Amino acid sequence: MKRISVLKPVLVSNKNRAQENRKFFDNMNSLVINIIASPGAGKTSFIRRIVEHFKKDFKILVIEGDIKGQVDSKALLKLNVDVIQINTQTECHLDAFMIAQTLPKIRETYDLILVENVGNLVCPAEFEIGEDFKLAMLSTPEGDDKAFKYPLLFHLAKVVVINKFDLLPYVDFEFKKAKDRIRENNAHAKIFDVSAKTGKGFDKIYEFLRKELFAKKGSSIHKK
Amino acid sequence: MKRISVLKPVLVSNKNRAQENRKFFDNMNSLVINIIASPGAGKTSFIRRIVEHFKKDFKILVIEGDIKGQVDSKALLKLNVDVIQINTQTECHLDAFMIAQTLPKIRETYDLILVENVGNLVCPAEFEIGEDFKLAMLSTPEGDDKAFKYPLLFHLAKVVVINKFDLLPYVDFEFKKAKDRIRENNAHAKIFDVSAKTGKGFDKIYEFLRKELFAKKGSSIHKK
Repeated sequence: MKRISVLKPVLVSNKNRAQENRKFFDNMNSLVINIIASPGAGKTSFIRRIVEHFKKDFKILVIEGDIKGQVDSKALLKLNVDVIQINTQTECHLDAFMIAQTLPKIRETYDLILVENVGNLVCPAEFEIGEDFKLAMLSTPEGDDKAFKYPLLFHLAKVVVINKFDLLPYVDFEFKKAKDRIRENNAHAKIFDVSAKTGKGFDKIYEFLRKELFAKKGSSIHKK
Repeated sequence: MKRISVLKPVLVSNKNRAQENRKFFDNMNSLVINIIASPGAGKTSFIRRIVEHFKKDFKILVIEGDIKGQVDSKALLKLNVDVIQINTQTECHLDAFMIAQTLPKIRETYDLILVENVGNLVCPAEFEIGEDFKLAMLSTPEGDDKAFKYPLLFHLAKVVVINKFDLLPYVDFEFKKAKDRIRENNAHAKIFDVSAKTGKGFDKIYEFLRKELFAKKGSSIHKK
């Protein structure tokens, strides 16, 4: 007798759809980064710095995932960057189908697509969307134990950004502890400590991303 | 022809199960508070202060919801308070069935049951667990727009605690804006601004909770 599984096919389909999305992005040689963090960790401020730094040389799209509203999109549009807003209504994460719905709106070739996922350390990690890699962000006021408490995200992330280093004197956060917690889940993640508020630490991220962008584009950099 | 719905019965069952849990707690005259916040907003530090203040006069149980680990439980056990740990494995929220599994372990009569939900502003709001009320917490480093971005939780919460007021000079957070955002979703929520680190602002919470505890117990206060 065959058992009928309800959950599995849905997840498999998300994976398939993510692969289709990935093909679409690969055809454009777009580097797609899925940015995942708690509410208020500083995702939008981080994206703002990346956009400001790279927009002269690369064509950038931001896909903004929020349950409701367009606060962050409106802030980003001021930077003169293309933004697509996804409102998930009640869903606590983006999935490959939501991203698929944005594809018909993508009518230009982008070098870099930054996807700001819904603020949440759990569910967004479970759903691939067609990204090149996941960037996990945590901020110093959240404490240094987050990678231990939310292991899947930190296991899957290629890059971990620890934000709000300007608050370090005022919060209980040990960088070494946080790093050890991340390493327990992930031996190879690149770890960056930054302040999106002051800009400190971003030079290393810019250098890293520039290499990733060139690797993705090969020799055919699409200048804006 | 009848349509078969998969999703609805599951939610209905959670609601039914939550009502069963509620009956169990009501029979003990326990005040049950479902505490919901982002990762690192300060739920455990908040609970620690409540426990320290009330443990002389009231019998307290903490139910700790985490995806993995027992970090917070171990910290709370040092306060000589009863703690039950729930590890949700992959689930991003507690539900009524998980709480139901803890009921056979509850062999004493508690006046106050503090449930620390999984760090997340989305999913925990959707699942009743049998609580008297939800307490939503946000912290100043997360920004003043959270109630706008995560409306369901702030709509349902009877109490909103804004934590980490000690960080106010160092973060972009306007109390009035935050309050207005909460009020847009919820005209009646009690709003408290505190610092779980320094203890500032807790007197008002103690006063409020003491009234709630007496209201729930009526004249039959169960002294420890």
